[in-house]
Amino acid sequence: MSSALLDPLFGADRVTARLDDAAWVAALVAVEVALAHAAAEHGVIPAVDAERIEAAAAALDVDTAELGRQAVEGGNPVIPLVRMLRAAAGAAGSSVHPGATSQDVMDTAAVLLTGWAGEVVLDDLLGAADAAAALAAAHRDTPMIARTLGQQAVPTTFGLVAAGWAAGLDRARLGLATVLAGLPAQCGGAAGTLAALHPHGPAVAASLARRLALAEAALPWHTERSRIGELAGALAVAAGACAKPATDVVLLAGTELGEVSEAAPGDSSSMPHKRNPIAAVTARAAARRTPGLAATLLAAADHEHQRAAGAWHAEWQTLSDLLAATGGAASRLRTSLTGLEVHPERMAANLPRRRKPAAGLFESPSDDTGPVLDGPEGTGHAGELVDRFLADRTGFAPPEPDVSG
Amino acid sequence: MSSALLDPLFGADRVTARLDDAAWVAALVAVEVALAHAAAEHGVIPAVDAERIEAAAAALDVDTAELGRQAVEGGNPVIPLVRMLRAAAGAAGSSVHPGATSQDVMDTAAVLLTGWAGEVVLDDLLGAADAAAALAAAHRDTPMIARTLGQQAVPTTFGLVAAGWAAGLDRARLGLATVLAGLPAQCGGAAGTLAALHPHGPAVAASLARRLALAEAALPWHTERSRIGELAGALAVAAGACAKPATDVVLLAGTELGEVSEAAPGDSSSMPHKRNPIAAVTARAAARRTPGLAATLLAAADHEHQRAAGAWHAEWQTLSDLLAATGGAASRLRTSLTGLEVHPERMAANLPRRRKPAAGLFESPSDDTGPVLDGPEGTGHAGELVDRFLADRTGFAPPEPDVSG
Amino acid sequence: MSSALLDPLFGADRVTARLDDAAWVAALVAVEVALAHAAAEHGVIPAVDAERIEAAAAALDVDTAELGRQAVEGGNPVIPLVRMLRAAAGAAGSSVHPGATSQDVMDTAAVLLTGWAGEVVLDDLLGAADAAAALAAAHRDTPMIARTLGQQAVPTTFGLVAAGWAAGLDRARLGLATVLAGLPAQCGGAAGTLAALHPHGPAVAASLARRLALAEAALPWHTERSRIGELAGALAVAAGACAKPATDVVLLAGTELGEVSEAAPGDSSSMPHKRNPIAAVTARAAARRTPGLAATLLAAADHEHQRAAGAWHAEWQTLSDLLAATGGAASRLRTSLTGLEVHPERMAANLPRRRKPAAGLFESPSDDTGPVLDGPEGTGHAGELVDRFLADRTGFAPPEPDVSG
Amino acid sequence: MSSALLDPLFGADRVTARLDDAAWVAALVAVEVALAHAAAEHGVIPAVDAERIEAAAAALDVDTAELGRQAVEGGNPVIPLVRMLRAAAGAAGSSVHPGATSQDVMDTAAVLLTGWAGEVVLDDLLGAADAAAALAAAHRDTPMIARTLGQQAVPTTFGLVAAGWAAGLDRARLGLATVLAGLPAQCGGAAGTLAALHPHGPAVAASLARRLALAEAALPWHTERSRIGELAGALAVAAGACAKPATDVVLLAGTELGEVSEAAPGDSSSMPHKRNPIAAVTARAAARRTPGLAATLLAAADHEHQRAAGAWHAEWQTLSDLLAATGGAASRLRTSLTGLEVHPERMAANLPRRRKPAAGLFESPSDDTGPVLDGPEGTGHAGELVDRFLADRTGFAPPEPDVSG
Repeated sequence: MSSALLDPLFGADRVTARLDDAAWVAALVAVEVALAHAAAEHGVIPAVDAERIEAAAAALDVDTAELGRQAVEGGNPVIPLVRMLRAAAGAAGSSVHPGATSQDVMDTAAVLLTGWAGEVVLDDLLGAADAAAALAAAHRDTPMIARTLGQQAVPTTFGLVAAGWAAGLDRARLGLATVLAGLPAQCGGAAGTLAALHPHGPAVAASLARRLALAEAALPWHTERSRIGELAGALAVAAGACAKPATDVVLLAGTELGEVSEAAPGDSSSMPHKRNPIAAVTARAAARRTPGLAATLLAAADHEHQRAAGAWHAEWQTLSDLLAATGGAASRLRTSLTGLEVHPERMAANLPRRRKPAAGLFESPSDDTGPVLDGPEGTGHAGELVDRFLADRTGFAPPEPDVSG
Repeated sequence: MSSALLDPLFGADRVTARLDDAAWVAALVAVEVALAHAAAEHGVIPAVDAERIEAAAAALDVDTAELGRQAVEGGNPVIPLVRMLRAAAGAAGSSVHPGATSQDVMDTAAVLLTGWAGEVVLDDLLGAADAAAALAAAHRDTPMIARTLGQQAVPTTFGLVAAGWAAGLDRARLGLATVLAGLPAQCGGAAGTLAALHPHGPAVAASLARRLALAEAALPWHTERSRIGELAGALAVAAGACAKPATDVVLLAGTELGEVSEAAPGDSSSMPHKRNPIAAVTARAAARRTPGLAATLLAAADHEHQRAAGAWHAEWQTLSDLLAATGGAASRLRTSLTGLEVHPERMAANLPRRRKPAAGLFESPSDDTGPVLDGPEGTGHAGELVDRFLADRTGFAPPEPDVSG
Repeated sequence: MSSALLDPLFGADRVTARLDDAAWVAALVAVEVALAHAAAEHGVIPAVDAERIEAAAAALDVDTAELGRQAVEGGNPVIPLVRMLRAAAGAAGSSVHPGATSQDVMDTAAVLLTGWAGEVVLDDLLGAADAAAALAAAHRDTPMIARTLGQQAVPTTFGLVAAGWAAGLDRARLGLATVLAGLPAQCGGAAGTLAALHPHGPAVAASLARRLALAEAALPWHTERSRIGELAGALAVAAGACAKPATDVVLLAGTELGEVSEAAPGDSSSMPHKRNPIAAVTARAAARRTPGLAATLLAAADHEHQRAAGAWHAEWQTLSDLLAATGGAASRLRTSLTGLEVHPERMAANLPRRRKPAAGLFESPSDDTGPVLDGPEGTGHAGELVDRFLADRTGFAPPEPDVSG
Repeated sequence: MSSALLDPLFGADRVTARLDDAAWVAALVAVEVALAHAAAEHGVIPAVDAERIEAAAAALDVDTAELGRQAVEGGNPVIPLVRMLRAAAGAAGSSVHPGATSQDVMDTAAVLLTGWAGEVVLDDLLGAADAAAALAAAHRDTPMIARTLGQQAVPTTFGLVAAGWAAGLDRARLGLATVLAGLPAQCGGAAGTLAALHPHGPAVAASLARRLALAEAALPWHTERSRIGELAGALAVAAGACAKPATDVVLLAGTELGEVSEAAPGDSSSMPHKRNPIAAVTARAAARRTPGLAATLLAAADHEHQRAAGAWHAEWQTLSDLLAATGGAASRLRTSLTGLEVHPERMAANLPRRRKPAAGLFESPSDDTGPVLDGPEGTGHAGELVDRFLADRTGFAPPEPDVSG
């Protein structure tokens, strides 16, 4: 799921550092510790055992490859990890993993990891959006030719184009932040009835969520995966919101258009006349991977009975890959847009001589009324639209975590 | 996009009736009429022209096949439709389609159609959820064996299982309703600058949205397609929320389990010993089509410049198919769950003798303590969880349309 | 599955005419007739009954909407169609559908339909490839600048570019033709054992295949769907082979490049300065729909037991849509390439002044040695490569049907 | 792309060991060495330089993380690797990478890696197919009930079921082997014209392919990606051929059916009454990831101009993941089927009392004629079909590499 060779190229290294094998182990251990404390809080296990478990967990040195090998038999890494933790906890060993099933721990750990990784994704989406908004402000009045179906059409401004980029990125970020904030802890036990924690099941479940700062679900969601589907959708939407500006940058940076160039274009040393927009190119590449990954997660909703025989397991790597690809797209786009060099003189040169917009029939311009584009007829309401967008944007903030479930 | 032969089988006929060629034409015409009135409201065209256009539109008898043929040259059906409407509007002909580009009309019509079709989808999701909730209430205390990875595990109740189905359906419905309510009208003109309506662009755009009872976007979204991606995600999540109970019904209805059967199982006349759960089977089939369709829409976010050269056009049929497949899944599931025959005696017979749940190690039951499952130890908190869910469910309602954009 | 409004626009009308409801009914009926004759050939039913069934089938006037409604109960249209055919066959009624299960008839009909529609797809792929090859021949020595990552790089020829288009189209056509030719009839009975035809099962199955000019499978393939997956892959590959040249046409036709234009560009009347490459745009749109549809078919391989409870049913509309989208992409590309206007003077103008290719370091050109590109150093082996490709292409032909299974 | 924690669980460790960062570096270096020798063979560089480059490459100790960091600027790891190799080759430094572009090296290395990994995938597909064929032979006459739509239907044999599994696996293996054998080296230079190797371009290209034991393409395929699409399709088909038997194993191993169990079922120590078919479960999980990954590759066919700005880069990780997921599915299925415990007594117990198959109306059995299923009427031609399949299977072998391109 991670590659030292390719992750930096696709901007995924910051995210994969929060999703790699060590992160998985850390998340699984964190859940077991929180569960022990939650159980102790309600008298299910002795309080001293929870302390011992926490201490044993802190000292645990897990060989992830060995854990991986031991995970094969039972079908997930929780089973051998609990064995290790029990051995390490000594007298408190029998208090490890109270009332839980392995899916409780895997799902809750996946939610933790997603939160950790999602923070990076949100940060890069914000960085990219801020860069786009700054371009919109700086180029509020920079005219350029709009292109429809690849053909020059009528004028617009680069500010309006960049505002559109920022709008998509903001919207996608808000959507993703909302989904992330609502992801709850999982606590249902073997069948979702919390039987093994009876009569303290709901109380322990609530405590577990609170201790991990996660939302709490009204019902165990072990086989009700709409949240995973929502997450998949929000991530792919975010990647799509990166793909749009990245595509525009690649096209506008094309030799014949030459209207933008990246601050650190690729390959400059060896080929002086080429200025490859590598950050935008790799942002597009990362984004292209997301719809298929999202489809895999959306298709995995059909969990059988009280634990799916494959659909659940298919989520793990797919979710990691989707977070990494989306984060990568955002990171590379942020690099592309931050300090993007805009060339108003090329934009002006590419503008046909001034055309007065027609009164309404299919974008058809009419008369050529002069050599300069300088009035409101040319770029219409572009400036006002930029102003309105930037004014609305002030104070934009992701929602607080929703703990009501 | 519609099939008289197959749509009823997959539950799609009610939705496709709102998405077929005639519906497209109706939506396109409705947008042109609303646009004319919006333009007249702000003095862009004479008020009398708007009236004439409305009258001409009402009398227009469009041959969809001919419109389809004429659409080929320009790449969309708006261009020939405007030609027809102009001819029909006589003296008001030059006032048709004021300041708009064909994408404004196509996108807004698609939003209208989506709303019309989405209403049916929401209704069937609600019907299916209500049926599931009724099953949860009726079988709050009906014990059955939980199955994990296909193996019998520990007890649960059918009520809790059905509550989980309802929870997924409710959640998916709320998500879809929220996305639908936020879909805005499109009004940007050839380049998104509203130039051809200057200085009345934003006012006309606001009026257009208001007249069609649609949300208004802060910026034209002709190439910012995050809303389409959100819609794709919400529809696929809804289909997934149908796939889960449909899968459970198919499995529980299997001959060897025999714990449920559909009220009108298929093929009963010719093969008395078979009771095929056809409604659930076809719900699953419809749902299986959605992740790939959603992926196509999510991948289509990379619109180039100010009008995409293919990504936009790829949305039209895909969105229709996704609405039809999701609606079909909901409709067929609703049929399956409404009046689903539950067989508590088979559930009881399939339950192993009573096992006391273990204190915490991996769902492992321990002692066999008696022949009857009758205490809270057996089904844990299942009853409370059902109660909590049903209590929360009262008053659930989809959001009002969000008109703030 | 078909739309009079949108199919022509996306080039799908020729294919959907062979896939619509009437075509489905015709295929289903053809299979029943062939099955009756095959059964009669081996004495399973009287020969006279087969004649009567054929006559009744020829006279049968099926109301597809009514058939669709009746299909709901049993889950497929074969059950009511057999009822209709029995009623129509009078005394031979009991000989209708001998030894078969509805999946035998649906699968074999789907293979027939696929062959009918596939013929159109192959024809348009060939037409597009021929057009590309003609461009390659005509422009063997037309220099143009190669572009990598959107940046001008070193020279190539338009002939080599077009030869690459043709190579992809040829390869995809051969792959699709091979898969189509190998699609076999389905004949296994209720469980795949041919029990109800015993001891004539294999003989009847062979006769059925022969009568329909289809390949024969060594085993019934009712739940072994690798052929459907291969078909899905081959169709999506073919659509991809259309997407590449369509993308290049859109880009090369861009105003700033202007190196090609379509013979009948869109929107020419209303906007004289725009020449939208609509055929290429809609080819791209059609192609974009195929990977998601192919993924749905590839994911539907997990048929349960001896008849899948959903995965099978999900194939029907998806396969039709995939055939229509692929055929549409091929048809629209064929239109785009046939008579594509190539502008060598613009290609020359876009070429930077002559650069001598460097000896090996990353595509870096070096010296500027003169104003004209006229020697082999400039375009390398492009001409030879075109010659080699065109020489190999002579005599290219799709394979004969493989009847060995 | 690899995970020590999760790869073993999903059977991917053997494949990922041939696809990891070190394998990528090894493949890239192998291509550069072969290219140097090919160039030397035709006098493009001195023979002694090729020897020096080979020696330097053998001694090169590449820090993959450092290479990854350096790859960011230019957009691929070839650029910094060539820098390292030049520095290491001393006087022969200027002869490194003769006439090539980075895509030549990346694509050819990807083909090499695919071959290395594909060998493992083919081996596991063969092992799984052999295990299925052995089950077919051993259980040629073991009756069991067929199930359609989850309902008991009429009898079949486990032998026929297993033969169907083997048939799918054989077919998928043959398809994959054919695609793998045809994957050619890439050698086109910056624009696909081989200009920088002129007049030795085609000769060097042929030599490169021969030295790496790869097929040779008639034309450079840098932007003609139908082979990648074919590979994607073949891998997903192979994963689907694994998903079918894995699904059947999970279902047949269900507690209520109990007709098979895995030799080493999961979780046996902690939960004696559960025998989770973990190998089949994880095979299904791995297979579920493949359609989305295949769709990503199929969608990436639209390479722009002479080097794609994102579609190409999106292939790298996706192809690795698809190989790993397919290989994992095959490996886990092989484990599941090898030594699968079949329980004929449970199969017999689940068989309804003997039914005589009806003469033709929809799988409807008719009379109950006795308590034992022992004649050909019961299981029809199942035995003959198994015999025919196994006889055909003898001598099955993958094709030799196709070097004609």
